[in-house]
Amino acid sequence: MKEKEGSLGLFQQFKFVRVLHHDTRAKSLYLLGTIQSQDAIAIIEKTAFNVQDDLLMNNLVASSIEDIRMLDKNDVYHWYMAVMKEDLEKLPGAKVSLIWPATQTHIDKYGKQRHRMITETPEMYRSVLAPYIETMKGDRIQWVYNILSHKVEADRIVYENTDPVNGFILLPNLKWDRTTMDALYLIAIVHRRDVASIRDLSKKHIPWLKSVQREIVQAVTTTYPLTETQLRIYVHYLPSYYHFHIHVTNVEHDAGDSTGIGKAIMLTDVISRLEEMSDEHSGFAKSTLSFFLGENSELWKNGYSKIYKD
Amino acid sequence: MKEKEGSLGLFQQFKFVRVLHHDTRAKSLYLLGTIQSQDAIAIIEKTAFNVQDDLLMNNLVASSIEDIRMLDKNDVYHWYMAVMKEDLEKLPGAKVSLIWPATQTHIDKYGKQRHRMITETPEMYRSVLAPYIETMKGDRIQWVYNILSHKVEADRIVYENTDPVNGFILLPNLKWDRTTMDALYLIAIVHRRDVASIRDLSKKHIPWLKSVQREIVQAVTTTYPLTETQLRIYVHYLPSYYHFHIHVTNVEHDAGDSTGIGKAIMLTDVISRLEEMSDEHSGFAKSTLSFFLGENSELWKNGYSKIYKD
Repeated sequence: MKEKEGSLGLFQQFKFVRVLHHDTRAKSLYLLGTIQSQDAIAIIEKTAFNVQDDLLMNNLVASSIEDIRMLDKNDVYHWYMAVMKEDLEKLPGAKVSLIWPATQTHIDKYGKQRHRMITETPEMYRSVLAPYIETMKGDRIQWVYNILSHKVEADRIVYENTDPVNGFILLPNLKWDRTTMDALYLIAIVHRRDVASIRDLSKKHIPWLKSVQREIVQAVTTTYPLTETQLRIYVHYLPSYYHFHIHVTNVEHDAGDSTGIGKAIMLTDVISRLEEMSDEHSGFAKSTLSFFLGENSELWKNGYSKIYKD
Repeated sequence: MKEKEGSLGLFQQFKFVRVLHHDTRAKSLYLLGTIQSQDAIAIIEKTAFNVQDDLLMNNLVASSIEDIRMLDKNDVYHWYMAVMKEDLEKLPGAKVSLIWPATQTHIDKYGKQRHRMITETPEMYRSVLAPYIETMKGDRIQWVYNILSHKVEADRIVYENTDPVNGFILLPNLKWDRTTMDALYLIAIVHRRDVASIRDLSKKHIPWLKSVQREIVQAVTTTYPLTETQLRIYVHYLPSYYHFHIHVTNVEHDAGDSTGIGKAIMLTDVISRLEEMSDEHSGFAKSTLSFFLGENSELWKNGYSKIYKD
């Protein structure tokens, strides 16, 4: 293996410890290891095919498959194993993400674990989640502030409304290869810092949420060859970090659990539900909300499991 | 590209026509083409990693990655693109299946339609969906009435509350093997016939919905070795048939699109949202609801596509 730029040596130093999770459907491998005696997580994920490349499609066999061997045949069915043609520039075979130094929270996040469905009342939110969210602010989301202040990833910004209250930055999710339109995945991170999750949203936020949704649709449909009905715009509850952000994917993209109930809520549903609420001061702080939680998470182990006595 | 054995020439003759389906999560490509003027389907799927190979795992970097380049970094996160080491014998990069000659049935099976995200206002519901639902009643759901009257599947009933207004029948979904507890999948079909979908639910249904939810949890947790927090209880909007029914799965079961936003809504969220609504007569008839629709569906082609002018 060769690496072409400085600081790449980091990945070369990765010492394998154990498999955290192997997603055989998504062809993704989550590995725990160490680099310089500190925990590191390496995520290796095979890339999706590049179906935008007409040349590739028209010369499929010659241009994308390096070598092929028949395994078996039965009636009209024929099976082969193949070696793909890969190219660091145009046809990389895998994306690799490295998290180093990794905290126990990172390790818990990627480690395979069983799940629980929590039905969180306002009281449960106040006693368990709200105090936890306080510990997840500040340094834990410094990387978000780095993006918002253009310290990092500024060249990747797709659209920005710089207003400190109503504005947001729209940029590609690092999970997206930025080419495969069917897998389009963007994140809108709001500039305001007073909304940690949908629990902080109330009826007064409706005009703001609607304008953000409108601007996202406008920006995405003018930047990419997609229409409004081809976009899935949603938020997470629980989110993985507590600074309000919105996910935007192509409806065709299968983002797995990330778009499942108990994790995702359509932004239009967030808005409609707020609109339906009775008095002017009501909001999600008073709602009962359902979500999944991994059994290894602190929130389950030291929080909700005690309430459920489970 | 070289092929090593006789009859492999078949794949070399594959002439690309169009992409039937591109599963970006599973990294699988379903292609329609022709071989000797007859339809052929080629399925190319990237392989999952070989985590059984200890040598590979222990020398991960050196043995499985051919070349790597850093894309970006932010704080503890580092992203790379990589070219994988592949080998026809030990580390093939993809599996290829070829169906030839392919019939229209094969093509329909693998051809996935594209989808649209509909944001349905109460007016859209009244003008498009409500008239459609009327055509889906009667004979179209005779099979549901057959279950409710014990004409069929009576031996499969897990639990029943026979009350004609408040009651329901709980039975295994035919997709479940009735053994694998992680894949548990039951359906609760209500006896009352006046609720076609959640659009017919209003605040007056809250006590009924809560009692149904309670009885489902009670029945499932006494019949199977599961606790309340291990159950995902949800409804579909749009449902596949217009007689109110509730899905119950193990939280560990990956039911794919069936549990995704734009299709599924947690029953607790249905109840909470009704509870939050302002006046006593309000219900989902006045809500804006989002859902997916296949482009081949009548509802898209002759209904919503005209509203969206898309």
